[in-house]
Amino acid sequence: MASVRLVTLKALHGSTSSLFNLTQSLRPLTQFSTIRAFSATMSPPSTAVVYENQGPPDAVVRVIEVPPVEIKEKDVCVKMLAAPINPSDINRIEGVYPVRPQVPAVGGYEGVGEVHSLGSAVTGLAPGDWVIPSPPSFGTWQTYIVKEQSVWHKIDKSTPMEYAATATVNPLSALRMLEDFGNLKAGDSIVQNGATSIVGQCIIQLAHTRGIHSINIIRDRAGSEEVKEKLKKLGADEVYTESQLEVKNVKSLLTSVPEPAVGYNCVGGNSASLVLKFLRQGGTMVTYGGMSKKPVTVPTSAFIFKDLSLRGFWLQKWMSSDKAMECRNMIDYILGVAREGKLTYEMELVPFNDFHTALDKSLGKLGSQPKQVIKF
Amino acid sequence: MASVRLVTLKALHGSTSSLFNLTQSLRPLTQFSTIRAFSATMSPPSTAVVYENQGPPDAVVRVIEVPPVEIKEKDVCVKMLAAPINPSDINRIEGVYPVRPQVPAVGGYEGVGEVHSLGSAVTGLAPGDWVIPSPPSFGTWQTYIVKEQSVWHKIDKSTPMEYAATATVNPLSALRMLEDFGNLKAGDSIVQNGATSIVGQCIIQLAHTRGIHSINIIRDRAGSEEVKEKLKKLGADEVYTESQLEVKNVKSLLTSVPEPAVGYNCVGGNSASLVLKFLRQGGTMVTYGGMSKKPVTVPTSAFIFKDLSLRGFWLQKWMSSDKAMECRNMIDYILGVAREGKLTYEMELVPFNDFHTALDKSLGKLGSQPKQVIKF
Repeated sequence: MASVRLVTLKALHGSTSSLFNLTQSLRPLTQFSTIRAFSATMSPPSTAVVYENQGPPDAVVRVIEVPPVEIKEKDVCVKMLAAPINPSDINRIEGVYPVRPQVPAVGGYEGVGEVHSLGSAVTGLAPGDWVIPSPPSFGTWQTYIVKEQSVWHKIDKSTPMEYAATATVNPLSALRMLEDFGNLKAGDSIVQNGATSIVGQCIIQLAHTRGIHSINIIRDRAGSEEVKEKLKKLGADEVYTESQLEVKNVKSLLTSVPEPAVGYNCVGGNSASLVLKFLRQGGTMVTYGGMSKKPVTVPTSAFIFKDLSLRGFWLQKWMSSDKAMECRNMIDYILGVAREGKLTYEMELVPFNDFHTALDKSLGKLGSQPKQVIKF
Repeated sequence: MASVRLVTLKALHGSTSSLFNLTQSLRPLTQFSTIRAFSATMSPPSTAVVYENQGPPDAVVRVIEVPPVEIKEKDVCVKMLAAPINPSDINRIEGVYPVRPQVPAVGGYEGVGEVHSLGSAVTGLAPGDWVIPSPPSFGTWQTYIVKEQSVWHKIDKSTPMEYAATATVNPLSALRMLEDFGNLKAGDSIVQNGATSIVGQCIIQLAHTRGIHSINIIRDRAGSEEVKEKLKKLGADEVYTESQLEVKNVKSLLTSVPEPAVGYNCVGGNSASLVLKFLRQGGTMVTYGGMSKKPVTVPTSAFIFKDLSLRGFWLQKWMSSDKAMECRNMIDYILGVAREGKLTYEMELVPFNDFHTALDKSLGKLGSQPKQVIKF
């Protein structure tokens, strides 16, 4: 049991010395204030979205009060400003994600906050600075987080809050995939399915800023013409619905862009096959999602004679690699593009009090909704 | 038409000056001996397996007499000794191979011959030397071939003729695939399906000589225990039938070898899925055939969370790359291993007169048969 609790508390507050708080944290906050008075080295109490068991998110998460924790000399106490509900956060709570925090745990994996107070040995940060956990880490759905300074990356405060809160999981995945495969350069082109996803929209825009053309595949749906127009405004060169691609040779549709060297697949099934059909000889398809829950099916000739490579991308694995130190420079780049207005995607900022509504929206209970970003 | 004939004659004799021979080659040979007498610069007449149109091999190939051609100063005239009927030769005649000679063409792609006579500018070769076309080239199913010296690679005459004739297409594919993927070294392991194929047997043996373990998947069939014993004698560490692998976790079967870093797939369908299941985190599956004519199906999680890479291998493409100059060193290595008796596979040497029977056997009309190697 000890090890479970240790991990959990690190997730909660990043401080192994706070072990005693775990069992207390499930009691009403009022009990604590009588046990331990605040001091200069303690954080404020925090309000957190916690789950004690994996399961359906709307059934297992609870908003609870977490007592103050000690701010040690290298620690920074951050008052969270905003944090998104990403699909991977949902999957972690459901217990279907390959890597997940041990329960009980606080939800969330990225976000932005403001420095509230500092341990005595912290330099280079001041109260009021904006920081993000970088690499991202578990437990951003709470009002105060205490973690060592090394966890935090100071960012430009003129960044729109919702972009600062969401820069890592989706835009960084998009940028990383543009960087890591096929040695793409201006004039090249890429093809992707799931182009309306946030990663998809980021790929369009970040490719566009580099002079890389994008060919985009979307589901057949009501209003697909409006969706096409919207993606083209973001910089998409070509947008097709899946049914438009029921032709003998999809490449014959390409008139103004070269055959793509790299494809991105977050859907699987027929939609992945369409990406493969567009790829040029020797091209690479990168799978980073499986929204249709269908596998990727590939004729053997595509490997042998078309020399295609199929790869995968998982941000969390990349974060744990020795390349992860590039992460902060890339985040700064992304936030700069966002500040220039060249990276946009739809989000809804939701007061923390309405967390359960935001969760229901993220679970798809209320139809198609923009990404929910909790504002603390 | 001129360009077609030019290519064809290059395939027949490698000599562009023999253009006039093409239309004559379909007339009875007796007509020619009256037109043009032999001279010191002419090859002997050749007997060749020719097809004028792509189609079912037993319907379209004919054995014809081809008149003598001029041996120019840089040319070597080679009396062919032996050449195999490979599945890819069949596919080229059928017209289902992505790269195929223009018709009319002589069949065959690899083989071994003996130097018969030399152009005046040829050095380093003498009559009686054994040579193979390296990289291999079209038109080895004929008794005499005239091509420039650069086409020919002199080999050790103590090599068993049938191994010299077949070293390129199958053993070189096996060696190349062991070299090019996953940075394999002694103590690693690989997994493959289609392990009884000649490439499969070569992979087992060449891996074994390098201290690389092999896990082998074979079809369920009568006599599978004997097949397992035979493959183990070649050096296979583990051999499983597909039905033996209908278990929850195939890796639990591995007791003495590590999880494989690289898998080789020449089957597709379920058999390819079994290869994928054996692969370790971050492993690579190389597809080089599709015997079941079924596609490769991959769950998206295998790309994202297991970080598998799927690639293809095609010898003919590799041959046309800038790496192809390594080819001759690798062939020498393979022939050395064969001379030591450490690379063996079943073949049947068939007199050229029985070509049509050998072709029927290669087409599977007479049940399972060893590889057919024509002896001229």
